[in-house]
Amino acid sequence: RMQNSRSKPCSCPSLKLREVASMYFTMVAAFLVILVVALQGSAPRESDFPYKVPLDPQGLLELSWNVSYREQAVHFQLLIRELQFGLLFGMSDRGEFENADLAVLWSDGHNSYFGDAWSDAKGQLHMDSQQDYQLLGARRAPEGLYLLFRRAFSTCDPKDYLIEDGTVHLIYGILEKPVHSLQAINVSALHGGLQRVQLLKPNISIPELPSDMKTMEITAPDVVIPSQETTYWCYMAELPEGFPKHHIIMYEPVVTEGNEALVHHMEVFQCAAAFDSFPHYNGPCDSKMKPDRLNYCRHVLAAWAMGAQAFYYPEEAGLAFGGPGSSRYLRLEIHYHNPLVFKGRRDSSGIRLYYTATLRPYDAGIMELGLVYTPVMAIPPGEDNFILTGYCTDKCTQLALPAAGIRIFASQLHTHLAGRKVVTVLSRDGRERRVVNADGHYSPHFQEIRMLKEVVAVFPGDELITTCTYNTEDRSRATVGGFGILEEMCVNYVHYYPQTQLELCKSAVDPGYLHRYFNLVNRFNDEEICMCPQVSVPQQFYSIPWNTFNRDVLKSLYSFAPISMHCNKSSAVRFPGEWEKQPLPSITERLREPGPRCPPAPGPQPAAPVPLNLGQLRRD
Amino acid sequence: RMQNSRSKPCSCPSLKLREVASMYFTMVAAFLVILVVALQGSAPRESDFPYKVPLDPQGLLELSWNVSYREQAVHFQLLIRELQFGLLFGMSDRGEFENADLAVLWSDGHNSYFGDAWSDAKGQLHMDSQQDYQLLGARRAPEGLYLLFRRAFSTCDPKDYLIEDGTVHLIYGILEKPVHSLQAINVSALHGGLQRVQLLKPNISIPELPSDMKTMEITAPDVVIPSQETTYWCYMAELPEGFPKHHIIMYEPVVTEGNEALVHHMEVFQCAAAFDSFPHYNGPCDSKMKPDRLNYCRHVLAAWAMGAQAFYYPEEAGLAFGGPGSSRYLRLEIHYHNPLVFKGRRDSSGIRLYYTATLRPYDAGIMELGLVYTPVMAIPPGEDNFILTGYCTDKCTQLALPAAGIRIFASQLHTHLAGRKVVTVLSRDGRERRVVNADGHYSPHFQEIRMLKEVVAVFPGDELITTCTYNTEDRSRATVGGFGILEEMCVNYVHYYPQTQLELCKSAVDPGYLHRYFNLVNRFNDEEICMCPQVSVPQQFYSIPWNTFNRDVLKSLYSFAPISMHCNKSSAVRFPGEWEKQPLPSITERLREPGPRCPPAPGPQPAAPVPLNLGQLRRD
Repeated sequence: RMQNSRSKPCSCPSLKLREVASMYFTMVAAFLVILVVALQGSAPRESDFPYKVPLDPQGLLELSWNVSYREQAVHFQLLIRELQFGLLFGMSDRGEFENADLAVLWSDGHNSYFGDAWSDAKGQLHMDSQQDYQLLGARRAPEGLYLLFRRAFSTCDPKDYLIEDGTVHLIYGILEKPVHSLQAINVSALHGGLQRVQLLKPNISIPELPSDMKTMEITAPDVVIPSQETTYWCYMAELPEGFPKHHIIMYEPVVTEGNEALVHHMEVFQCAAAFDSFPHYNGPCDSKMKPDRLNYCRHVLAAWAMGAQAFYYPEEAGLAFGGPGSSRYLRLEIHYHNPLVFKGRRDSSGIRLYYTATLRPYDAGIMELGLVYTPVMAIPPGEDNFILTGYCTDKCTQLALPAAGIRIFASQLHTHLAGRKVVTVLSRDGRERRVVNADGHYSPHFQEIRMLKEVVAVFPGDELITTCTYNTEDRSRATVGGFGILEEMCVNYVHYYPQTQLELCKSAVDPGYLHRYFNLVNRFNDEEICMCPQVSVPQQFYSIPWNTFNRDVLKSLYSFAPISMHCNKSSAVRFPGEWEKQPLPSITERLREPGPRCPPAPGPQPAAPVPLNLGQLRRD
Repeated sequence: RMQNSRSKPCSCPSLKLREVASMYFTMVAAFLVILVVALQGSAPRESDFPYKVPLDPQGLLELSWNVSYREQAVHFQLLIRELQFGLLFGMSDRGEFENADLAVLWSDGHNSYFGDAWSDAKGQLHMDSQQDYQLLGARRAPEGLYLLFRRAFSTCDPKDYLIEDGTVHLIYGILEKPVHSLQAINVSALHGGLQRVQLLKPNISIPELPSDMKTMEITAPDVVIPSQETTYWCYMAELPEGFPKHHIIMYEPVVTEGNEALVHHMEVFQCAAAFDSFPHYNGPCDSKMKPDRLNYCRHVLAAWAMGAQAFYYPEEAGLAFGGPGSSRYLRLEIHYHNPLVFKGRRDSSGIRLYYTATLRPYDAGIMELGLVYTPVMAIPPGEDNFILTGYCTDKCTQLALPAAGIRIFASQLHTHLAGRKVVTVLSRDGRERRVVNADGHYSPHFQEIRMLKEVVAVFPGDELITTCTYNTEDRSRATVGGFGILEEMCVNYVHYYPQTQLELCKSAVDPGYLHRYFNLVNRFNDEEICMCPQVSVPQQFYSIPWNTFNRDVLKSLYSFAPISMHCNKSSAVRFPGEWEKQPLPSITERLREPGPRCPPAPGPQPAAPVPLNLGQLRRD
């Protein structure tokens, strides 16, 4: 720390810059405005900003960015196609306009300014005392105005958003009138919106691709996008008969030009091998015309969401498809997000699979971690952050994983509508070792398969603990676990290799202990709950009067009661062994919240001892 | 915030100082050491440092200090009578040498240095990157070396101790050998000790004292201090017969010269008026010879602890003593702390009361807030911070307080050995309004009557909520509430005026709900607890198997179950009304933790917008 502190030079030149800037600011009406920053040389190349996402449904605002892990900063390039009197761009916890961290470009009709600002709980804008959105350049081009700016992941300014792994809620607002100062803006009144992205894309080197690689496009056949906000479109595709086993080694989106802002996410599912054939279908997934059998097409082959790039398998592994024992039928699902209700837009988007017949050393597999889909795991109503935890125990990994372990390289987090955070942690010998995947701003509306920054090795005896945080403030009755959209899930689909028989490693509270809880709550609350034996678990949860005691005791139950383990080869077939009334994994050492490392405030004295002239101290 | 940030000048001169200091540090072996700081002019006057406390039992280290609330800093003067090769002085959470914040004076045998350091969890010393103990001067005098230094309450350096109201655990360590660098010191191995003080004495203006003021010394009559570490000495004194009602308006300690480090604390109690006379006694309080009747002398008239100064009543109030209806008998109790087991020390310490016959407008009173002394409030074993809360409800204050309210001006917090923190908060209309008194480093070994920084007005309908935090990590069975030294209390004795009939405003959980808890725990844990009706509450607590569920549910019970209120005129006489099964006060708005206001780290750019030359933005 001494080194650090001493090596930092005092920024005397910045004092002058600050004074100058401040002078200009106060006298700006009287002076001609000078161009403080300008893009050096020519326009930046496309490859400078590999990630791109439209911010608004019309695609008038287009954000490109890159991530420098060395500098711990993101560089943004924002294309504004039809600039009016300025623009707000920023980040907030869940996409709200209040308590947001914003870069603001504004014009009073004559002059334009750029600054770092924040909005308070009422949406009122304030200039930030520390300017962390750093403007690097601005450039007029035929297609619009490009703004280039930079933002460190962590600024140590309490008014700033901390850019972390996982989902980031980007927000934008349009200034449609001249504004005379930033303080005059209330963001809550602006026309704007939000866009979710994974800002901190992992920095992964692309594996070499084989020369015999082939491609296959699973795309919608010239669909007319329905003129409604939300459509899930289903289209059935089919592999050629006798198509042998191949490895998918990469896939990427194929998005019809002009529809970039409408195609929200796409998935390709493989159907169950149990059925010999599946009907053809091309229509909305919720249509009455959709054949029921399509519900058996749920094995994910590929998944893409807006802002994601091509997905590459690690060079040692590929995802098997084709060959005996797997279905020839594929289902493409496209989520069209059309809030402006455009009519008659045609779309042929989909996913392009890259595959090879030269099989790689390992088949990749997908394993489900988290909670069993059962109503015994429930969330009381009115909770702002209720936590449920699912376990993959040492006993299960001991039994099911090879001695050499498995390597997790990607992860897709999944909850239903109440989910707000999801994290999976790897624990070994009772000590949490590392985060497998975490999303502190998780949204059920933005589910992607994400490559991990680093592959995580899991060995027999390790534990994988998946924790989901829910918000049920808008609900009046308990939310139980289950498949329904208003029921909840807590799942992490991890992608790994080599594939093992273990498809599912999940838990739920022991039903006997839950019964004790209902009993206890019933007696404590003067027998108000129906404990009749024919009443279902959801009905019992719905009849609980939710006071603080009943809530707290449910939390205590979930963090104490033994669990029922699903250590399964497939969703119905367990590994042999005793899986009921298993002890909860005990954690003796938790991972510390990483938290930003902020330098201490500038001290009154340097970090060096003060020499004293006291003569010899001891007088002996 | 902009204003603030811009007005801060860049500290260019300090850059030079830093570089110079750093140069000296690295080249100190080659150069003659210069005297960097020296006391300007003559020695500081006694009045510059009004507070004084010996640090060690021999009184070889004497700390004086003053508090500047304007500068938010403490100035220390440390007298080192027999300096060897240096000294450590500092602060830590509870007086431990590890994780401490230290000022260090050290000598390598030739040169001496002063610096701000911190010790890690293993006691290893490190130079702090931010030097917050600022040396102001050093001075040789016949009695020893004086060090003068300054420390801000809050430094915003995470390695530093935050100086707050309430108890501060000071520590010292002696360097008995030359040390060649600060990094070579491990504090755990040093000879040293701790001293508890209230560092942030309130800045109270002393009320004018009346001309007819008289004094009375209640002092021990030439006691030979027993040669043992801990002695509680009891001495009975007596007011003259027919002594009329007076007001005590001030008191101060009388400590025999040379015994400053031995007299730990002293209290004067008035005996119960119910008895006509009390026997004389002069001896240890725990002696078998002590008459039992002395146990009825418990009404506090005056209390002093090491480091405290004179206690002044507010000018409108005095503490009544003498006159009909009050006992003539007083008990002086002195705690002698003699860890070095000095033999034959004689002592005549005590307390000097200043009183007046010209009664002030109001009698002062003492009221007990917190928890009733009952085993229904219990702490499980092995807890590091278990919280119990006692309530003085709106219903009680509505009934017992005058419309004009009362003014609390002083407070004495009290727990037994497991107590670690105590805080009383005033709540009005369900919203916490202010802290009455708080000690985040409370020690049961350091109980003083503390003047509040500001008088707190309490009106009918207000609620006073007292919360105690306990540590029972060293215990193997539950700790129940009660009078015993291994039982617990949670009390705040508040001193206020005008005196009312309300002597006691305390609560405990409803016994019926506790019974439900025992029942519930019993059923949940397979009937392991003896629920036989003849078993006492402590016995039931002792038989609970303390797993996380039983602990958590006890916490939930205490924060949910209705309470039994003691809204009493004296310890046995309640105000009329229904006081059983009262609802817990509901708090809709909590006080925010104050926390230090730290400036954001220096930013990359000044807080001013960047003007851009974009021409007119809108192209219409």
